[in-house]
Amino acid sequence: MSIQHTVIFRLNHSLDSPQAAAFFADARALLSSIPGVQQFTIQRQVSEKSDLTHQLSMVFADESAYLAYNEHPTHVAFVANRWLPEVAEFQEYDFTEVEGD
Amino acid sequence: MSIQHTVIFRLNHSLDSPQAAAFFADARALLSSIPGVQQFTIQRQVSEKSDLTHQLSMVFADESAYLAYNEHPTHVAFVANRWLPEVAEFQEYDFTEVEGD
Repeated sequence: MSIQHTVIFRLNHSLDSPQAAAFFADARALLSSIPGVQQFTIQRQVSEKSDLTHQLSMVFADESAYLAYNEHPTHVAFVANRWLPEVAEFQEYDFTEVEGD
Repeated sequence: MSIQHTVIFRLNHSLDSPQAAAFFADARALLSSIPGVQQFTIQRQVSEKSDLTHQLSMVFADESAYLAYNEHPTHVAFVANRWLPEVAEFQEYDFTEVEGD
């Protein structure tokens, strides 16, 4: 069963800063290059009921593809070098289909 | 610009109860019948990093379609009669596309 992995987050940078643009460009280039990543998107979060501002979303064919992504050196390096220093707050959610959908 | 409206939540009911099944069936039937609601889905939330268990998602063509849904009597009644009494915890997020995606 496929899994949609999402992270909703807010950067330490202001939204219109060059640092924010560089973060999104690098996230897209690096993470979408990892084997098994499908349907990679970055969206704006616009509900006033949350102060998080963006969502990263990707789909994996199955649990083993998701685990391989988590352990891939490009992902591990991105988390250490970019995510932890540049992200102020985040929440992960992973989705699978419900029977009938 | 289209808007994806999502709510991630946890019911007061146990997941395999008839009450939970009735909630999901009624949510699908009632909310997806409201004009302007597109791509209605219910998914399981499976990340251990959140204790919320399901996501409702729908897409609106624009902000005015979203506002009309919010004010529609079927939505207002569902919130009062089912959502508030049966949902233990929830978080809303709304997404729009980022240029380039």
